[in-house]
Amino acid sequence: MRDVAVIGIGQTPVAEHWDKSLKELAGEAVIAAMRDAGREYADGMFMGNMMSGSANHQQHLGAYIADWVGLRFTEAAKIESACSSGAASFRAAFIAVASGEMDCAIAAAVEKMTDSTSDEITTQLATAADADYEAGMGLSFVALNALIMQRYMHEYGWGKEHFAPFPINAHANAAHNPNARFQEPINLATYEKAGMICPPINLMDASPMGDGAAALVLVPLDSVSSTAKRIRIIGSAGATDSIAIHHRKEPLFLQAAYLSSQKAYKMAGITPSEIDFFELHDAFSIMSALSLEASGFAERGQGPRMAVEGEIFPGGRLPVSTRGGLKARGHPVGATGLYQLVEVVQQLRGEAGKNQLDRARIGMAQNIGGSGSNIITHILQAI
Amino acid sequence: MRDVAVIGIGQTPVAEHWDKSLKELAGEAVIAAMRDAGREYADGMFMGNMMSGSANHQQHLGAYIADWVGLRFTEAAKIESACSSGAASFRAAFIAVASGEMDCAIAAAVEKMTDSTSDEITTQLATAADADYEAGMGLSFVALNALIMQRYMHEYGWGKEHFAPFPINAHANAAHNPNARFQEPINLATYEKAGMICPPINLMDASPMGDGAAALVLVPLDSVSSTAKRIRIIGSAGATDSIAIHHRKEPLFLQAAYLSSQKAYKMAGITPSEIDFFELHDAFSIMSALSLEASGFAERGQGPRMAVEGEIFPGGRLPVSTRGGLKARGHPVGATGLYQLVEVVQQLRGEAGKNQLDRARIGMAQNIGGSGSNIITHILQAI
Repeated sequence: MRDVAVIGIGQTPVAEHWDKSLKELAGEAVIAAMRDAGREYADGMFMGNMMSGSANHQQHLGAYIADWVGLRFTEAAKIESACSSGAASFRAAFIAVASGEMDCAIAAAVEKMTDSTSDEITTQLATAADADYEAGMGLSFVALNALIMQRYMHEYGWGKEHFAPFPINAHANAAHNPNARFQEPINLATYEKAGMICPPINLMDASPMGDGAAALVLVPLDSVSSTAKRIRIIGSAGATDSIAIHHRKEPLFLQAAYLSSQKAYKMAGITPSEIDFFELHDAFSIMSALSLEASGFAERGQGPRMAVEGEIFPGGRLPVSTRGGLKARGHPVGATGLYQLVEVVQQLRGEAGKNQLDRARIGMAQNIGGSGSNIITHILQAI
Repeated sequence: MRDVAVIGIGQTPVAEHWDKSLKELAGEAVIAAMRDAGREYADGMFMGNMMSGSANHQQHLGAYIADWVGLRFTEAAKIESACSSGAASFRAAFIAVASGEMDCAIAAAVEKMTDSTSDEITTQLATAADADYEAGMGLSFVALNALIMQRYMHEYGWGKEHFAPFPINAHANAAHNPNARFQEPINLATYEKAGMICPPINLMDASPMGDGAAALVLVPLDSVSSTAKRIRIIGSAGATDSIAIHHRKEPLFLQAAYLSSQKAYKMAGITPSEIDFFELHDAFSIMSALSLEASGFAERGQGPRMAVEGEIFPGGRLPVSTRGGLKARGHPVGATGLYQLVEVVQQLRGEAGKNQLDRARIGMAQNIGGSGSNIITHILQAI
């Protein structure tokens, strides 16, 4: 397989985009990424998206968006794996370029959620849970995560306040990200006063939905001449787990995160200690803790300690959600995985503005579909 | 890139599967393919499907089906490109194995349509059309194809009866396919008496929906020891076109079929004359004619001549729909592309029963998404 580099990135703000259609939103990100890459053509486009068929009455986004951005005739398909659709499209583009089948592939993703009512969106999101055993019983995604968090607190003895640093860090970082949905910092009082959604998950434990699109352009590394843009994909892997949580042997351990991160470390030839920062999937505070543990950064049951001890903040041992994460940048479901990867590239290029980390040589992004049932890990390096 | 072979195939009958859930249906095909391949494990599974999110309230089919068939933890994703989702999943599996990233990949696809009413399905199918310019105007897929057929007959002077051999051939072949939805032959009188759906398309010009699943197992060619199963993928390519037909320069020419078939011929190092049989996408009779023309088997406007002169029947110059095609085997939308490929492998292996062709050394399958907006062509060879 050939070495692959990211040479272009694009994103829209995460917001309520009432003035843009689905294709205008996606097109904005794709065209920005192509301009950034200095390319006007690609051999293929992989379009991550979860629910355009129900939320926007439009499937077939590969051909649909390719045509809109001026890539009519280019090979294209939509990739879906619930909330990890974005990273899945990136992985498809990576394999296509690494294989030699394509010399330039675009990983793009879009989700336009606010055209639907929140009731409709809750129902549509529940199609990522098990229709027979979870959604059919009335379990929404918040409820599923609440069950996990409740059990986790019981098993390991953490209090609710120990999860507060996750959203506090995310909001502090998002204050400097013009594309973030929420750009206001919060503090412990905000967290403690936040309305309860589904105990123990309160409003500050849950990421907001939103409309958004992001895109990256991938090419063979040896075709990149600009040293400023030599961002190499050194690790790429995905793994699944049972969708229904009760089927899992250990409901408090993200086996798919463990498997995909281990594969990615092996491919990159590094250990977790060499990761400088981590764009993790903080859809809910509990997922941040579980992701840190399964990816080898904390012992089991000790994820919140990294938050409490400040290791996840900028300047800490492992900064996470450096541009606001899902919690504050926002979580446009199928597009989230590509926002994470765009942000990794920004840090590696030194283009993260006031969020720029002092040390950002190797960055990792992990995108979680369902309540941990499809997890994709990527590691990128500035070279 | 490595040479890739198909070593396992599986399918369910196309029918109204009231007694099976979505996962049971998909699982039946995947497990059959794995048994046929003699494999109990795969590195990845690519799940073709168009509308499980709306028709079955279940997205996230990669993880969902992987877990059900005993492949929990295996990397998986859903691939969607409307009616060509099946071939898109095959192409993803092909690239993954060719690249060296996977040593065994499963291309699987499922569609379970009969749980919905036909009104609901018509609406869901219309999400493969352009939501703004086509579906929003009330155009269903039958109506879109009727517009194309009407114009085609006007431009080239063909009568309706000249399209009859397409469904007559399909039904004659399906009579010997135990997995076909309709196993009764029809004749010219049947065609002429058939109820009109949307002029000029009558009931015999349109393929039936249905529930179905199909799967194939792909591995590196050099790992296949059994000579009986050395079925090599010698051509693989996809291309898109504008979804909205009025945007196309030539609405009567399938540019995406032309591009993907030319790429596939080039990759295979062959000319169209070397293709022994062709599993084409006869969702509507008019699509058969357009597919033959754009793929280089007939001059523009002359596709029906191949039907009228019997060239498409078994023993003719280019047999098509050898096991019944979409018209009589049935068209479970997202799964159709893999039925076509399973049937190509059956012919190449000499396992097509009474449908077995005398000469079946190189076979081609072409899967069309939308009204020609995403077309994927594969060429397989028995070696």
